[in-house]
Amino acid sequence: MAESYDSQETHGPYDNFQVGDFILESGAKIRDLNLAYATFGTLNADKSNAILFPSWYSGTTKILEHAYIGSGRSLDPERYFIILVNQIGNGLSSSPSNSPAPFHQIRFPQPSIGDDVRAQHRLITERFGIERLALVLGGSMGAQQTWEWAVRFPDAVARAAPIAGTARTTPHNQLLVDTFIEAITSDQAYGDGWFDEGAVHRGLRRHARLFAAAGFTPRLFNEALWRDLGFTTVDDFVTGFVENHFLPQGPNDLLTLLRKWRGGDVGPHGGGDLARALARIKARLSIIAIEEDGFFPVADIEAEQRFVPHSRLVRIASAWGHLALFGLDPAYNRAVDAALSELLAAPAPQEAP
Amino acid sequence: MAESYDSQETHGPYDNFQVGDFILESGAKIRDLNLAYATFGTLNADKSNAILFPSWYSGTTKILEHAYIGSGRSLDPERYFIILVNQIGNGLSSSPSNSPAPFHQIRFPQPSIGDDVRAQHRLITERFGIERLALVLGGSMGAQQTWEWAVRFPDAVARAAPIAGTARTTPHNQLLVDTFIEAITSDQAYGDGWFDEGAVHRGLRRHARLFAAAGFTPRLFNEALWRDLGFTTVDDFVTGFVENHFLPQGPNDLLTLLRKWRGGDVGPHGGGDLARALARIKARLSIIAIEEDGFFPVADIEAEQRFVPHSRLVRIASAWGHLALFGLDPAYNRAVDAALSELLAAPAPQEAP
Repeated sequence: MAESYDSQETHGPYDNFQVGDFILESGAKIRDLNLAYATFGTLNADKSNAILFPSWYSGTTKILEHAYIGSGRSLDPERYFIILVNQIGNGLSSSPSNSPAPFHQIRFPQPSIGDDVRAQHRLITERFGIERLALVLGGSMGAQQTWEWAVRFPDAVARAAPIAGTARTTPHNQLLVDTFIEAITSDQAYGDGWFDEGAVHRGLRRHARLFAAAGFTPRLFNEALWRDLGFTTVDDFVTGFVENHFLPQGPNDLLTLLRKWRGGDVGPHGGGDLARALARIKARLSIIAIEEDGFFPVADIEAEQRFVPHSRLVRIASAWGHLALFGLDPAYNRAVDAALSELLAAPAPQEAP
Repeated sequence: MAESYDSQETHGPYDNFQVGDFILESGAKIRDLNLAYATFGTLNADKSNAILFPSWYSGTTKILEHAYIGSGRSLDPERYFIILVNQIGNGLSSSPSNSPAPFHQIRFPQPSIGDDVRAQHRLITERFGIERLALVLGGSMGAQQTWEWAVRFPDAVARAAPIAGTARTTPHNQLLVDTFIEAITSDQAYGDGWFDEGAVHRGLRRHARLFAAAGFTPRLFNEALWRDLGFTTVDDFVTGFVENHFLPQGPNDLLTLLRKWRGGDVGPHGGGDLARALARIKARLSIIAIEEDGFFPVADIEAEQRFVPHSRLVRIASAWGHLALFGLDPAYNRAVDAALSELLAAPAPQEAP
């Protein structure tokens, strides 16, 4: 199942960047690390039009393409060279499910958000010779990677737009992530992590329902907005949309992503001090929060934004909450396009008159 | 474990009202239905000072006593005759865990919120000869019972204060409740519902963590407000406070309550039409919502309040969210006391000049 799900047919076309053996922040090593990515548009002569957009939890870059890229959109391939990159562990880039024995499944080393960003930096510098990105953006776990980019490589990021995600995972968010992890690992079929293909569907279904109940808005259910997607009941929607999204994915891939999510923190770049870490940022930031987002409440995002120079907080209202990231809500799409276009039109702080 | 937990020592002193054989709305029968209750204060001569306060999910009346009753409080035993009643299935009133075979555990018939209110009506009329309550109030599932009282027995309720709960469980809330049910039943030790005493602790712990992650506020965790209770880490708090609260309780008792919660709906009194059902209410209502309550968002409560004659919406801010019900937050306690005192001082609509 994982093989057909993680195919070029489903998620392609995409390219692969062979990072090679890669030592993680933890000291562990991923052999032959591969980053799967897709590009749109053309890199200009001075390499000043590059945009990097890493994937979020449980998604691949295909959904980013559908939801955010297009002629006339803010991420217009006629103007920009857009690199969508699959984060480590998502089933397309090196992951528990697609690595060779013995370092596969639960023996796949646990990467951090910082490891993703270090590998992505190799991709943009070594493959494309890009030293500075016009924009880094991402939603949810993609926002975590965006934050890490802006803090870790301040000179390599002109602008950044973390959407619906934080620079340091909050204790409440960690508790939520723990419930997702436990939903999968508590499945008896998951056992010690060496399971039969497709066997962990109970755990994945349980995880999917927690995800929907905690992250989507009450309004989505109470006003039956899921009808817009053609479903007939709450259960029909949760099974047909949410369970169906997670069921084809590798349980250990999701667990790797969840543990990465849980540990997201730029603090170490400031000696453990979040404010000091965020003060390293040289980019111009539009920090985007989705109102009624159950995973990343506006208050949590606002609490970080206060420490960021050259930043503004953009609130976007959507009845879909966190799920708006998927591009399902035209009002969200318009609002996020407006925010990104404005950011792209603004000079980077270093260039400001 | 259940026996010592559900003891007079832990929860008493309380009295028992033997309802006798009781036919539920579903047609099923509970043999020798018992309601455990506790009273405070003295019923006056014209029986006009009676207050009924049913218990919420997973609690007994002891916590209501500690959190809401006292000299100088709005629920002052020197002025009022206060009846705290344990809802069916909570371990003190008739429940899966304390019923004799063969109708115990999963053979205990599933009651509805309406059944509770019918049985409580028997209690106040038959035991105390009370025809009209000065006030009915309750939090969470207690609010469900309060709503049911006001709609089902409009002439028996002068005032009502549903706190942090709805008249009809919303689809989003049902999805949340489903995740709680599944957290318990998915424990292998739960099996077919005939389990060894204490064996289902994994499921109860899982349920406790979902409950905390979904219902308490992000602020409670992110600002480490749990320190006020003497805990040292998030995990210490979740284990020592939340798991510890649920672990002694009967898994089938909690499931009975959760299914009752899930089905809460006054709609049938209006032929299925919620607005018509709520229009039956003759009492004066203060409908209290706790801001940042993850279970019962203010918007859901407000949506119902609009249909209720003689009502006002009272919003109470608390960093504890739904957990404020427990009386842990002095600011919540003051605000709820003020709202209840004001309501008790106001004439019932039928008596208004």
